[in-house]
Amino acid sequence: MAEQEASGTMAEEAKIDEDILQVLQDMANRLRLHAIRTLCASGFRHPTLCSSASEIMSVLLFYIMRYKLTDPENPNNDRFVLSKRLSFVNVATGWLGQGLGIACGMAYTGRYFDKASYRVFCLIGDGESSEGSVWEAMAFASHYSLDNLVAIFDVNHLCHSGTQPLEHCVDLFQKRCEAFGWSTFVVDGRDVEALCHVFQQAAQVKSKPTAVVAKTFRGHGMPRVEDAEHWRERPMPKERVETIIKLIESQIQTKKQLNPKPPVEDSPQLNITDIEMTSPPAYNVGDMIATRKACGLALAKLGRANDRVVVLDGDSKNSTFSDIFKKEHPEHFIECSSEQNMVSVALGCATRGRMVTFLCTFAAFLTRAFDQIRMGAISRTSINLIGSHCGVSIGEDSPSQMALEDLAMFRTVPNCTIFYPSDAISTEHAVFLAANTKGMCYIRISRPETAVIYTPDEIFEIGRAKVVRNSVNDRLTVVGAGVTLHEALAAADDLSKQDISIRVIDLFTVKPLDAATIISNAKATGGQIITVEDHSSEGGVGEAVCAAVSMVPDILVHQLAVPGAPRSEKPNEPLSMFGISARQIIVAVKCVLMN
Amino acid sequence: MAEQEASGTMAEEAKIDEDILQVLQDMANRLRLHAIRTLCASGFRHPTLCSSASEIMSVLLFYIMRYKLTDPENPNNDRFVLSKRLSFVNVATGWLGQGLGIACGMAYTGRYFDKASYRVFCLIGDGESSEGSVWEAMAFASHYSLDNLVAIFDVNHLCHSGTQPLEHCVDLFQKRCEAFGWSTFVVDGRDVEALCHVFQQAAQVKSKPTAVVAKTFRGHGMPRVEDAEHWRERPMPKERVETIIKLIESQIQTKKQLNPKPPVEDSPQLNITDIEMTSPPAYNVGDMIATRKACGLALAKLGRANDRVVVLDGDSKNSTFSDIFKKEHPEHFIECSSEQNMVSVALGCATRGRMVTFLCTFAAFLTRAFDQIRMGAISRTSINLIGSHCGVSIGEDSPSQMALEDLAMFRTVPNCTIFYPSDAISTEHAVFLAANTKGMCYIRISRPETAVIYTPDEIFEIGRAKVVRNSVNDRLTVVGAGVTLHEALAAADDLSKQDISIRVIDLFTVKPLDAATIISNAKATGGQIITVEDHSSEGGVGEAVCAAVSMVPDILVHQLAVPGAPRSEKPNEPLSMFGISARQIIVAVKCVLMN
Repeated sequence: MAEQEASGTMAEEAKIDEDILQVLQDMANRLRLHAIRTLCASGFRHPTLCSSASEIMSVLLFYIMRYKLTDPENPNNDRFVLSKRLSFVNVATGWLGQGLGIACGMAYTGRYFDKASYRVFCLIGDGESSEGSVWEAMAFASHYSLDNLVAIFDVNHLCHSGTQPLEHCVDLFQKRCEAFGWSTFVVDGRDVEALCHVFQQAAQVKSKPTAVVAKTFRGHGMPRVEDAEHWRERPMPKERVETIIKLIESQIQTKKQLNPKPPVEDSPQLNITDIEMTSPPAYNVGDMIATRKACGLALAKLGRANDRVVVLDGDSKNSTFSDIFKKEHPEHFIECSSEQNMVSVALGCATRGRMVTFLCTFAAFLTRAFDQIRMGAISRTSINLIGSHCGVSIGEDSPSQMALEDLAMFRTVPNCTIFYPSDAISTEHAVFLAANTKGMCYIRISRPETAVIYTPDEIFEIGRAKVVRNSVNDRLTVVGAGVTLHEALAAADDLSKQDISIRVIDLFTVKPLDAATIISNAKATGGQIITVEDHSSEGGVGEAVCAAVSMVPDILVHQLAVPGAPRSEKPNEPLSMFGISARQIIVAVKCVLMN
Repeated sequence: MAEQEASGTMAEEAKIDEDILQVLQDMANRLRLHAIRTLCASGFRHPTLCSSASEIMSVLLFYIMRYKLTDPENPNNDRFVLSKRLSFVNVATGWLGQGLGIACGMAYTGRYFDKASYRVFCLIGDGESSEGSVWEAMAFASHYSLDNLVAIFDVNHLCHSGTQPLEHCVDLFQKRCEAFGWSTFVVDGRDVEALCHVFQQAAQVKSKPTAVVAKTFRGHGMPRVEDAEHWRERPMPKERVETIIKLIESQIQTKKQLNPKPPVEDSPQLNITDIEMTSPPAYNVGDMIATRKACGLALAKLGRANDRVVVLDGDSKNSTFSDIFKKEHPEHFIECSSEQNMVSVALGCATRGRMVTFLCTFAAFLTRAFDQIRMGAISRTSINLIGSHCGVSIGEDSPSQMALEDLAMFRTVPNCTIFYPSDAISTEHAVFLAANTKGMCYIRISRPETAVIYTPDEIFEIGRAKVVRNSVNDRLTVVGAGVTLHEALAAADDLSKQDISIRVIDLFTVKPLDAATIISNAKATGGQIITVEDHSSEGGVGEAVCAAVSMVPDILVHQLAVPGAPRSEKPNEPLSMFGISARQIIVAVKCVLMN
């Protein structure tokens, strides 16, 4: 379908009607005026900042792109991602070069999942391209032959090398784009006719993405301002702005409008809501299985329940067990090679509610993508991140691979739901709950095998903790999650032989935290809580619990957490070495009860 | 000096003695054996993983690099950064492509600050180069003409494009390196003679860094194993490993050793400890000045006190006010264009205790470099990060630029000292304290102007909070920092008119937290604390205080913090809009006292 579109465009190419070109030029000037007026009205009199790309925008919006003006979210529409500052479409990308990765996710979805005709355009500022994430996206797009993707580099200034002439700068962009496997065109970004042709050519390129390196000028259309560096630094006098506005107005020759071409309506209908487990979890109490493995199995099951599930992994699929999903649903698996770009691609897949998007990697490496995660949350997108190998329980590997900060990181992310399942059954529920939850979800999973503690009919809800050990004689409440829950249970068993009875709570979700359950159980057990977590003491389970009870009188919280920077010493019992094992819980319980 | 070195090397080039080549080959095999034995002894029988680069290492360590074997930290030594997994030198880089940025910092220091002959070599795995941070470093090195830097790409496998032949893969690396402005050589990484020549040529390249794209093979030297993909996935049987060891041993022909060439001893002597303020801070109580501006001024002053201060900024110098430093010390300022690479370069500058290293950017953008920060802390390096424009108090800009998670992020960083100064005088002290503190420091500074509240003779210490409002009738303690401290003071003024007296604490450092001062003052004021912070409620000041008092009976903590994802609405009073202004502190105080 995409190919037919391309040849359709080809026929129109030869010569473009002069009238149409004039209208496009006029529309460019109208966009320019609009930008100047909007910015200056808000007291921000830097009109040069937004005018370099007006011709590009005019040609894209009124001549090249296919979409329904009256229905901007229509799934058949071409997509536009403005990765430069002043973003206004689809995803709030800020200025840090995240737009192209998002555009990659949209283009991948269009080409491989929707198999539809819509195309994706991404406008990138030249300054932005100093961010490595742009080059990760460049490599991704060429690797996956995303020929439905066009990136426009708005090279409107001296490159960041500062001293180099603009010509050289354009060459440099061209060389780099070509080296990263893109079909590359250089064009005068002020020339609407040239732009029309170049975008038409881009539509004919097969199995490669296209880069359009557009030589533009800040302040284009503004006499004695064009490319003048100093207007970037200081606001322009009001009168000067008025003169410029009048001049641009005088250049507009027509009142005609161009309507965008309608999209090809070939995106499939789909439903990604209310995805249900086809059968209850198939584990028995006492089975030994790592939550990371249960997670891989749950993803594969989810893929059976809905055909719009996509899983991304950053070259760690045999560790995160996302390879279980891949084996069963190879065409719904995307291999990524860097975390930043993986998160951006996921954000792109998830736009317009077209995919149930999961990504897996070592939890520690998600620190790499904190900015992308933060921006994704601000944009209110729904993606699900799975972080495996959390904490010191990974055992043998280097400290660089132990996530001890991921809970703190995700807890600061607005509206993020954080699951921290403790066995295979709760993991499977976490995956299905995440798939059905709006906003961002994070699932923290562990490397070691742990026992199944829930029965297949147990019901799990977001924000509802489980009291997993409970008697009227309990003298203290231990809060755990993941591997530490099992340590708490072992401690409880041991203590019960010494006639010390403790209550044990499994958080299930760290955010939202089930404060009510924690508080009521603490009150029922002498107002004493011990938290134990495979995470740093800052920003994780312990502090979440401290904050939750901070306004309730007579509850004390004692934290067990991983201190400082762990060293990798191949311990046989890492939890014990770092102070969060059953043994240390027992010591802490006795210590609290003695005081 | 570096140029003379290069011509010296040139003379030796023509032909290398056969004996030397044999010794280098033997040394390569010894390295290979050592790696195999070490790995297999630890039960990790993947000998193919570490053998591809043995020839490269042998040539570098015993023929090319100049250093004192007996004094590996000697400042005149050539530097080696192993960016691949299994790092062993200088900085623990993990496997995520951070090594080249660090090498850039070392090379920049060598060329521009030390003006010395030592050179920097960085070995990079091919997989790693899918990380965008590698390409940020590539752009940085060519922009700053770091001809004392050699990057070796160990292209030992099919590239991550998977299906492409090795030849193509090497071409691709070559093209990309050239497009990023590097002098680039392709070489057979198994051929010690070719390697010697190529590194000698690299030493002659002027004003460009050199990339050596080495075609290597996993498992080189192991019969029927070389480049065999499946040994990567599963451990090799013990007997098979033994056979391989015997075969490699049989290929070693000499017992000769080569001694590395001695370094040129031209690195300057220096002292970066005990840097003192040349004069007390020059502000008067009541002066209005933003802490970000005071920070820029303090950096400039620090640069006067010691000539080994370097400041990096990520294209935000007129916002962070690091341009004040730049104006005064232009040659000690490094303009960077991306946060990840900026942090890596800073880590490189700081190695071997040669520079007092500060970097400045918007605090929100430090999320981009969380992984680099984390790894820097694990490696116990001393760099100082300054994050400006924290919180909603930035006012007009987009939420993407409001740091609301930076305290949570840095609090999880092991051994990180976090300063959060509230006026110009405490800011200046924070800068000088950070300069003299081992380990990582973070200084959180704010955009708005605030009043100077301390006198120039006030003494500041890490971990010591200031009680800034205090009377015997205080009924409650408010803990603030930065802009919220001023709100707390305003609230105290207002409340005192209503005969309600409150105590106010300025934290100064958030980590370490002055728990003793907080607890004693809370006890003296009815056990009631209100925390107020321009940060999310998770992982910041509020939770730090909750955790600090969590084991102390009869203290309650009430948190005021920025809720959820703020929207950018150009509020006149952002603090009020987000619930952290004097007005809301007053309401909270009354609410607490009524209960």
